[in-house]
Amino acid sequence: MKNGTTHLFVPGPTNIPDAVRRAMNVSMQDMRAPDYPELTLPLFADLKKVFKTETGTVFIYPGSGTGAWEAAISNTLNRGDRVLMSRFGQFSHLWVDMAQRLGLEVDCIDVEWGEGVPVEEYQRRLGDDRQGRIKAVFATHNETATGVTSDVAGVRKALDAAGHPALLFVDGVSSIGSIDFRMDEWGVDLAVTGSQKGLMLPAGLGILSVSEKALEAHKQSRMERCYFSFEDMKASSTTGFFPYTPPTQLLHGLRASLDLIFSEGLDNIIARHHRLAEGVRHGVHAWGLRLCAKEEKWWSNTVSAIVVPDDIDARHVIANGYSRYRTSFGAGLSKVAGRVFRIGHLGDLNEVMCLAALASAEMSLRDAGAKVEAGSGVAAAQEWYRAEIAGNLQPLQVQAA
Amino acid sequence: MKNGTTHLFVPGPTNIPDAVRRAMNVSMQDMRAPDYPELTLPLFADLKKVFKTETGTVFIYPGSGTGAWEAAISNTLNRGDRVLMSRFGQFSHLWVDMAQRLGLEVDCIDVEWGEGVPVEEYQRRLGDDRQGRIKAVFATHNETATGVTSDVAGVRKALDAAGHPALLFVDGVSSIGSIDFRMDEWGVDLAVTGSQKGLMLPAGLGILSVSEKALEAHKQSRMERCYFSFEDMKASSTTGFFPYTPPTQLLHGLRASLDLIFSEGLDNIIARHHRLAEGVRHGVHAWGLRLCAKEEKWWSNTVSAIVVPDDIDARHVIANGYSRYRTSFGAGLSKVAGRVFRIGHLGDLNEVMCLAALASAEMSLRDAGAKVEAGSGVAAAQEWYRAEIAGNLQPLQVQAA
Amino acid sequence: MKNGTTHLFVPGPTNIPDAVRRAMNVSMQDMRAPDYPELTLPLFADLKKVFKTETGTVFIYPGSGTGAWEAAISNTLNRGDRVLMSRFGQFSHLWVDMAQRLGLEVDCIDVEWGEGVPVEEYQRRLGDDRQGRIKAVFATHNETATGVTSDVAGVRKALDAAGHPALLFVDGVSSIGSIDFRMDEWGVDLAVTGSQKGLMLPAGLGILSVSEKALEAHKQSRMERCYFSFEDMKASSTTGFFPYTPPTQLLHGLRASLDLIFSEGLDNIIARHHRLAEGVRHGVHAWGLRLCAKEEKWWSNTVSAIVVPDDIDARHVIANGYSRYRTSFGAGLSKVAGRVFRIGHLGDLNEVMCLAALASAEMSLRDAGAKVEAGSGVAAAQEWYRAEIAGNLQPLQVQAA
Amino acid sequence: MKNGTTHLFVPGPTNIPDAVRRAMNVSMQDMRAPDYPELTLPLFADLKKVFKTETGTVFIYPGSGTGAWEAAISNTLNRGDRVLMSRFGQFSHLWVDMAQRLGLEVDCIDVEWGEGVPVEEYQRRLGDDRQGRIKAVFATHNETATGVTSDVAGVRKALDAAGHPALLFVDGVSSIGSIDFRMDEWGVDLAVTGSQKGLMLPAGLGILSVSEKALEAHKQSRMERCYFSFEDMKASSTTGFFPYTPPTQLLHGLRASLDLIFSEGLDNIIARHHRLAEGVRHGVHAWGLRLCAKEEKWWSNTVSAIVVPDDIDARHVIANGYSRYRTSFGAGLSKVAGRVFRIGHLGDLNEVMCLAALASAEMSLRDAGAKVEAGSGVAAAQEWYRAEIAGNLQPLQVQAA
Repeated sequence: MKNGTTHLFVPGPTNIPDAVRRAMNVSMQDMRAPDYPELTLPLFADLKKVFKTETGTVFIYPGSGTGAWEAAISNTLNRGDRVLMSRFGQFSHLWVDMAQRLGLEVDCIDVEWGEGVPVEEYQRRLGDDRQGRIKAVFATHNETATGVTSDVAGVRKALDAAGHPALLFVDGVSSIGSIDFRMDEWGVDLAVTGSQKGLMLPAGLGILSVSEKALEAHKQSRMERCYFSFEDMKASSTTGFFPYTPPTQLLHGLRASLDLIFSEGLDNIIARHHRLAEGVRHGVHAWGLRLCAKEEKWWSNTVSAIVVPDDIDARHVIANGYSRYRTSFGAGLSKVAGRVFRIGHLGDLNEVMCLAALASAEMSLRDAGAKVEAGSGVAAAQEWYRAEIAGNLQPLQVQAA
Repeated sequence: MKNGTTHLFVPGPTNIPDAVRRAMNVSMQDMRAPDYPELTLPLFADLKKVFKTETGTVFIYPGSGTGAWEAAISNTLNRGDRVLMSRFGQFSHLWVDMAQRLGLEVDCIDVEWGEGVPVEEYQRRLGDDRQGRIKAVFATHNETATGVTSDVAGVRKALDAAGHPALLFVDGVSSIGSIDFRMDEWGVDLAVTGSQKGLMLPAGLGILSVSEKALEAHKQSRMERCYFSFEDMKASSTTGFFPYTPPTQLLHGLRASLDLIFSEGLDNIIARHHRLAEGVRHGVHAWGLRLCAKEEKWWSNTVSAIVVPDDIDARHVIANGYSRYRTSFGAGLSKVAGRVFRIGHLGDLNEVMCLAALASAEMSLRDAGAKVEAGSGVAAAQEWYRAEIAGNLQPLQVQAA
Repeated sequence: MKNGTTHLFVPGPTNIPDAVRRAMNVSMQDMRAPDYPELTLPLFADLKKVFKTETGTVFIYPGSGTGAWEAAISNTLNRGDRVLMSRFGQFSHLWVDMAQRLGLEVDCIDVEWGEGVPVEEYQRRLGDDRQGRIKAVFATHNETATGVTSDVAGVRKALDAAGHPALLFVDGVSSIGSIDFRMDEWGVDLAVTGSQKGLMLPAGLGILSVSEKALEAHKQSRMERCYFSFEDMKASSTTGFFPYTPPTQLLHGLRASLDLIFSEGLDNIIARHHRLAEGVRHGVHAWGLRLCAKEEKWWSNTVSAIVVPDDIDARHVIANGYSRYRTSFGAGLSKVAGRVFRIGHLGDLNEVMCLAALASAEMSLRDAGAKVEAGSGVAAAQEWYRAEIAGNLQPLQVQAA
Repeated sequence: MKNGTTHLFVPGPTNIPDAVRRAMNVSMQDMRAPDYPELTLPLFADLKKVFKTETGTVFIYPGSGTGAWEAAISNTLNRGDRVLMSRFGQFSHLWVDMAQRLGLEVDCIDVEWGEGVPVEEYQRRLGDDRQGRIKAVFATHNETATGVTSDVAGVRKALDAAGHPALLFVDGVSSIGSIDFRMDEWGVDLAVTGSQKGLMLPAGLGILSVSEKALEAHKQSRMERCYFSFEDMKASSTTGFFPYTPPTQLLHGLRASLDLIFSEGLDNIIARHHRLAEGVRHGVHAWGLRLCAKEEKWWSNTVSAIVVPDDIDARHVIANGYSRYRTSFGAGLSKVAGRVFRIGHLGDLNEVMCLAALASAEMSLRDAGAKVEAGSGVAAAQEWYRAEIAGNLQPLQVQAA
């Protein structure tokens, strides 16, 4: 039986706001009509605000964030180029894997899962690279598998300290639009995101913002590419027309999503993600459990990976949530399979939804045999939310009887 | 800021399932096309199952439950007819008011709010009515204002015990489809419901099921009527065509809603409403509060009216819920304004949604100064739901990593 | 097989614009929330613009136009009141029938179907009514069954010429929002419409605008009423709350519909209806057929009732349209059944849609044996539309290749 | 002003059926839930029926048909491989361009635009290729730019006649699902399509069906690839899970689309496309114009590219259609820009819609100065459709009055 709302707490795809769903429900239209750019051109301009860039160029690919990863690499590097990467979760792992398959020579630093980009080690290796063999430095801003947010500003400082000219690639798929990200200020050259996280859309768009420096590097890039090539796609942000049929429906959704984002305010959204995440973390700690993210500085505001007690299989927690309580939690992936379950808390979300997630997780944990106290996590989060909201009070309105 | 789901816990209109919303999103169609009855005729047949009647005739009015009340009265009674009614909440009050305004002579029994139809008193008065002056007996099956469910089967027994031929009118707006209701078995003559409660649709349909006996009485009824007249509308359930433009969109929604109802099973739905309501009641009692419904026999499975502590204004609880936590609770109406707030728990609902309601209510109560313990209601309900669901276990499925 | 668009050319319900469909696809909400009036209050204000009234009060009933008819009568008149009506089509017939059933004494003038309100005869009878026995005068502005538009301004003149104080009731269901209608200027006291015609919504709202004079008359009205009573509903236009659950979904649709109307401009819409209708009439005349509306002054801009050749059954034309060409035409009703078929041309419509209607009608006529030339009606309408549009040219834009 | 339906007659994206739009309007869901494959696995199985293959493996990429082209090449060939292609329109041109950019050595036969794949020349070159240097033969089944359908069965015969082992690649983007295509019977190794044509969905899916022979070739392919790699994606058709977030919304739409296709019957759809296209061609010839497709054997049933008179600029025709008549026609691309305009007639379409296209085109042509007779094309098409439909008659049904 499937009554009521499904409680979706995976860290993407995220809940789609009603306004966005409505906006996507359109009849089809001619993507070569003279007024088509009235839809598309403002999207490019507005996405730049989300990336916090003024000088970047935005590419919108029909595809996924993975496609945008590939676009970033194949358009600016060459086979055999040396790149500096670090691996501390399933998604940073997959990016390393892609770089290798596309023919890069990856200098990969393995870090314990639960930590993030090793900024000091980056700085050391960049400093050692006197001949400038490293063409690019990669940073996974938010590792979705472990709930770890890395210090991208720190990576920029490491590059600057070493006076190193490498391009800076950032995977912002599960951060951009939810966690503070500043493309220009941090000197990011290629910033990748997707539609299905902070942008609150279905999957289907891989979005890339490219710095002027990266566009220069593109001129030297000789990798084979076609679907993802900048050459074909670059004009889209100035003409509003696409080289192949664009997913018009998603573009209408993107319009609605950006409208919601600017209406709430990007910085307010970032603050809200912190507030909501903090409530979840209060709950986790009230259970007596800990996050996979080892230190507070790594805590992610979009996803919490929660380590279950040693005698519990996290897969049972997740299965209980899904089959008993209509709740989808994220699984532990690869190395942490069975050891963690994840609560995604990003996108179109509010306090009571987070309490529902905690309430459902408590039952799922208890059903799996974990010794967490019923209601304890909910209570801790409630008190946090009450205090936060009370600090921001609107005058009371009394309802009509 | 309006992020995430609005948590709707008023006792109607209820949450609309996605499948129903989708079904209503249709282009317009010709309501006189030869295949139009393929949509409409099965609706009449299927609604009979929801009323649990085989011999009744169903009328679907563009309007509301209030309109169906009026249809019931104006088609089967005459001005000056004496009717037996009871009043113990805002909706039974309004029905009495309508009967009076339509020219009936109402023998009205006022009962304390928190109790239901006074079956024994009904039986006494019916027994006293040797001349059969009482033409109809009215029962509000579920008084939405106080969360009180009455004993309709008992009213039938009272009629039978008195050997009285009066028609039995039942307001089932907030019970039918959610709480056990048996038109034929209980000898109900006019059963009223609306689209926006257990049928999980927007408001817009007043639905009436009429017994053969009531159709006989109709022949003697001389009240002016037109829009709601049986004469014009009666053919619709056999031809599938309507005397004026029907709300086709809602009829498509009704199709989807009935499909959901039969897919889950009406009796399973009734059991689910009990299970969900019981969880809410566990929560209320864990807070140390009590229901407006005075005894367990009156407890409603579709709405709980919760009495706040004496020093608290329930309007503040409701205002907190709405403005701080995006949660809509029902207000106390009329006599109980300020003394109760209501949690509607009917329609398309599941356990975690009820926990969200309790979590939100706890915060709203505490913000209003009530001394309820954070997490206490949630914990009590969680344990009830866990036990109930565990008793019904499906084999576990482990999610893909 | 049901491929592609169904071509809906009945005179209501009309095609729903995509923007309106989207707007109705909402999750349910609390109709007693403090911000609910933000949705509802502007609707009342904006509907007044559609009625072209500044002093009228608007009532929105969950129901249909028929319900609004009943509301108009039962709230302002009394049983036994004499009223002046005329009958020249199925809908004016039904209104007479309602008036009689609600207990009025109807002075009914039967006019040949194909003509409209007999203004001179009205003036004569009003002049003869020295004692002021006539309490109200009724006019069907646009008789949907015959495609006849009457002269409401003329009825006002007749009343004024006779110095008669009777209320003026106007059925504007298939005119308001599409054909010029001026409540205040014409001194209309009760103007009725529904959601499913010019307002481009599904059926489900009966809308009534009431003059100050009619509100005065209301104070003397003693008819039984409840669902449709002004007493309960009157506050809605000032508080934004409804006495029973309003059809929130339709209200959101109404918001979108009004936005479209004001965006196009009401007078532009009226001009467009003339332009589109005129094209259809050019087509009809090119076929060598004639309209049911006997003279040009009666021609309706929302629906054309077309008289088929004597040896043809119009029902076959309609059946051909529906079963062969996925096109819904309106049937001839009652007296003109089999003699006319109707093309509705109102609401969300453009030139090419009208050409599609004509093309489909030509085939349906020819299949039924009518000797109309293939393409002839289309050609005549094309030339009209080309000339009309060319007179209104925008500079050409060339599409991207 | 934008009233009424936009008439979309570009050859893709095509009109989306209401049922498909509804199906896509879903809340988001967990793509790693244990029951997710209940949605996805049947899609793979059912797409095989659309490709008419039993042994093929289907890949569904978030992307476009262009992406599926790239997937086909980069997974089965190697840089420097020689391939045989032909070029006779913008889309076959772009495929050649892609092959070159991905590093293939293209043996390209240029054919006059208006003709199709030169089967005899293919056979000659294959016969000459004694060393088997040609690794693959490419055929654009339906060249959307010129409205030319090629003889894929003939290409197979050419391969067989030459006894040549090359892989056969077919671009079926604008044919599959609308024009007869038989993967297994014709020995096609890589068949490419997209969501936005015969599948009646928005753009966003690139779909590829791969023969067993092509999967063998894949093992020898060493091109860099990641996003489009078979390695990562191959498991999806057996597990139902995707390597990266799938566009769940479109997958729901695909489910609805496939249901519609099988409900109508694929062969019935192919016949309908022929019937509708033939009507359009009757219209074109009645205008005294000719198709870009030089001979009847090349005529496409999904798109007609119509050559305008020498003294007319086709861009004006298209601009007239769009700005005056809310109609989107396809532009002439590249070599035929200004010389042709295109009417797409594929997907969710019926006879009266095609008549609307012709009516609109007639006006647009006349406004541009072309000497075509008003109504002439419509009349010719009407007579064709009438005869075709009459041959298929259902017993008449008469509508309710």
